[in-house]
Amino acid sequence: MSDPIEAREEPLFERMALIGIGLIGSSLSLAARRAGLVGEIVGTARSEATCQTALRLGLVDRVAATAGEAAQGADLVVLAGPVGIYGQLTEEMSSHLKPGAIVTDVGSVKAHVVEAAGPHIPEGVHFIPGHPIAGTEQSGPEAGFAELFDNRWTILTPVPGTSPEALAKLSAFWTGLGARIETMTPEHHDLVLAITSHVPHLIAYNIVGTAEDLADVTQSEVTKYSAGGFRDFTRIAASDPTMWRDIFLTNKTAVLEMLGRFVEDLSVLQRAIRDEDGERLFELFERTREIRKRIVEQGQETTAPDFGRRS
Amino acid sequence: MSDPIEAREEPLFERMALIGIGLIGSSLSLAARRAGLVGEIVGTARSEATCQTALRLGLVDRVAATAGEAAQGADLVVLAGPVGIYGQLTEEMSSHLKPGAIVTDVGSVKAHVVEAAGPHIPEGVHFIPGHPIAGTEQSGPEAGFAELFDNRWTILTPVPGTSPEALAKLSAFWTGLGARIETMTPEHHDLVLAITSHVPHLIAYNIVGTAEDLADVTQSEVTKYSAGGFRDFTRIAASDPTMWRDIFLTNKTAVLEMLGRFVEDLSVLQRAIRDEDGERLFELFERTREIRKRIVEQGQETTAPDFGRRS
Repeated sequence: MSDPIEAREEPLFERMALIGIGLIGSSLSLAARRAGLVGEIVGTARSEATCQTALRLGLVDRVAATAGEAAQGADLVVLAGPVGIYGQLTEEMSSHLKPGAIVTDVGSVKAHVVEAAGPHIPEGVHFIPGHPIAGTEQSGPEAGFAELFDNRWTILTPVPGTSPEALAKLSAFWTGLGARIETMTPEHHDLVLAITSHVPHLIAYNIVGTAEDLADVTQSEVTKYSAGGFRDFTRIAASDPTMWRDIFLTNKTAVLEMLGRFVEDLSVLQRAIRDEDGERLFELFERTREIRKRIVEQGQETTAPDFGRRS
Repeated sequence: MSDPIEAREEPLFERMALIGIGLIGSSLSLAARRAGLVGEIVGTARSEATCQTALRLGLVDRVAATAGEAAQGADLVVLAGPVGIYGQLTEEMSSHLKPGAIVTDVGSVKAHVVEAAGPHIPEGVHFIPGHPIAGTEQSGPEAGFAELFDNRWTILTPVPGTSPEALAKLSAFWTGLGARIETMTPEHHDLVLAITSHVPHLIAYNIVGTAEDLADVTQSEVTKYSAGGFRDFTRIAASDPTMWRDIFLTNKTAVLEMLGRFVEDLSVLQRAIRDEDGERLFELFERTREIRKRIVEQGQETTAPDFGRRS
């Protein structure tokens, strides 16, 4: 879809600090290296095993023991762990941040990040929260790949008073990673993502849980006959548990709002089935076909049937 | 996964009648031809355009004007249209069926099929309902492919008194198409499929409908940021509307039962979010990862992250 990425001659940032090296952090490193966007990459992760894997795979040039140490002297600091600890991490980093540095993140919620991390960012450091709408169901430093952000959207949610130069530089960084950029308020981001990501994950987790708890259908039957639709949900429900717990705890209001609407709509369908109202069912099933066409047309989905999977 | 299919020297059935030539019917024709399972294929479909396409693609050797005419002299008759008209179709075919012929179907519900079609099958004709657990979101005679059933399960739901020879012959047919066979009662089939297929489709249709009706999130936003999880649901919600309307109308009891459990479980999650009960959320999210592993291990899903899609 997008043009091949050519490596820059001069990096945009001399030193990038990666605070968290999972699927997104590792992909970010690989994509940044592909495009020559950064000089040195310093990384840190809570688990020593993750740090060692990141070194072995060349995802980072060196490992720091703490977020503060990693941030020291960095021109770009990227928070790339579960959002629940951003407050604590930025507090730790606060006194180490270099004047003029940009601090950003890749978390799936934004209002909470502004609230939890914002107060710890010192004067003279630019804080611009962000969220790349990309991922797979896999986790950890070995799950990353350089193409993850290609042709995907990254949402930046600058707060009032954000320096236009810093915003332009961070946008150039994401464009260099392969992404397209959109900006919006943190609150609007959280509402949009509640419907396009958070509630879909919640209902996928939920139906997989329901299927596991059945007494009259065996687990072996659920597994064998999953190709009927269920297995798609298990992919989403295999996503990182810590990350998703934090998302629901920190985007509570928007998730409950969208979930409420989903449940209302589901009651209408439930009633239509009970009343054998075929027309109402048909009308919905016909209408929902259109939205997929638009997603495919806009390059956000493969055109191949069944996602192109052959198993 | 499965061994390469070798064409038989002698067909299992001299003449197969396909009543309906959509995704399943066309795949059935291609897979049957691949394995040399049938001699002649006679097809019929409600739309003249479908019949012409089927002839052009060589899916059928000839087209019949009615289901009765198609069934005339056939050794195997396969109902492969929406289940809502099976009663009418078998009534039409009744006087044309050849003694000793096998009548089967590929419908996604089974108790209703036994009830609606069973009474129209004359003495001396074998009626064995079936359901291949395979498909894509695409419909119509051009959507089929010979590999659709490879390594997938086909459920046969023989009724009391079914001839073991006829059952063995139909099983050999499905094995020849690439599928694995399981038998169970029609009622149990409907319960299993309600959780592995019907309710997943219903909630996918429902969330796509919810997302379409929002006023505070635009359709363009839903489309752009769909890679966060939502787009997986749109694939399922792009499935054939007539087929799915009929499924919900004819598997009402089992669907409402499973949907009731899903909604109960969802209420518990909703409450956990409201109460910020991170432990309960984490426990579920951790548990649901396991089921996907089993699905992958059992060859019912690709091992590639994100279904292997790259868009």
